[in-house]
Amino acid sequence: MYPKAVRQLIEQFEKLPGIGPKTAERFVFYFLEKGKGEVERMRMALENLRETIKSCSACQNFADSDPCHICSDKTRDASIVAVVAAPGAVETVEKAGEFKGVYHVLRGVIDSARGITESDIKLEELAGRVQKSGGTIKEIIIALNPDIDGETTALTISRALGNCGVKITKLGRGLPLGSDIEYADEITLGEAFSGRKQVK
Amino acid sequence: MYPKAVRQLIEQFEKLPGIGPKTAERFVFYFLEKGKGEVERMRMALENLRETIKSCSACQNFADSDPCHICSDKTRDASIVAVVAAPGAVETVEKAGEFKGVYHVLRGVIDSARGITESDIKLEELAGRVQKSGGTIKEIIIALNPDIDGETTALTISRALGNCGVKITKLGRGLPLGSDIEYADEITLGEAFSGRKQVK
Repeated sequence: MYPKAVRQLIEQFEKLPGIGPKTAERFVFYFLEKGKGEVERMRMALENLRETIKSCSACQNFADSDPCHICSDKTRDASIVAVVAAPGAVETVEKAGEFKGVYHVLRGVIDSARGITESDIKLEELAGRVQKSGGTIKEIIIALNPDIDGETTALTISRALGNCGVKITKLGRGLPLGSDIEYADEITLGEAFSGRKQVK
Repeated sequence: MYPKAVRQLIEQFEKLPGIGPKTAERFVFYFLEKGKGEVERMRMALENLRETIKSCSACQNFADSDPCHICSDKTRDASIVAVVAAPGAVETVEKAGEFKGVYHVLRGVIDSARGITESDIKLEELAGRVQKSGGTIKEIIIALNPDIDGETTALTISRALGNCGVKITKLGRGLPLGSDIEYADEITLGEAFSGRKQVK
């Protein structure tokens, strides 16, 4: 049987998405082969993550400041909010460079098969943000993956914000059904932003 | 761009074997979603590994004591040493329950394509151990994967120990060419141990 410290670390690695026991073992032996320096670098990176990363209270993205550097950027158009599922989508849209508004990160999408309901995502925060803005927010662009969970979530968002007097659009032309927004190329994403269409 | 602490942890995860940038990102966001408790558990497991795991000075396996629990077990037959490439192989052979001797973990095999030579594995330690044993060690069972690198390493071991007067065998029947010893079933492994054959 492996020493206790080895077994404990294998267990931790097994919790990571898509990682089984054999891969978790390989990770632990990678660290044992590399030695204490590499273990320490990983440990410090985790500690650093724990200590410096917070939620932006406006957009709900992970950031090292609150509000984050996008929400606190005066040159951005705070009247348009792109609603995305995850921080990775913010990165991808920023790289495309088409969008000059701000974001709202839902931290997930509604997925009834996996028991994720609207209370598990940052939808209430979005509704609160729209209300508190006192009319500053004019448009919500729903920028979710064009699949069933994304469409369900889009519908729920448009219902939740139905009485706010805000224009709700979703990304249009360019994103083929079933694709993943984080892998979209810049031109496709640009077209999707300019070709967005109103939900209601 | 992601916050610095996020980028640093992504970089650390990318170093793990078989992990690309997208998977590394998913790992980091797993921790951000799970929160500080999970980060702390991983951090503690790494610290624990760093602080408690040492090399057994006899068999070179990773262990929480030196000598390890196998090398210090008086009921085991110290005259037979099974030479394996990695700690995982010790686990698998122990589970099969066929072998009652002790081990020597090479921490790798000779692989000229990847620049791993005999000085990169624990071969010198094996030769030293056989000499220091003063005749206690009667047999070396080479229990390496039956592939080209394993065969090359077996040949090098048998040359290095050529003048020690010790019997050198390697695992025989049961292991199909190109397979991985860590995935062998117990019966096949048992047959391989009982059907081992002498190298020289």
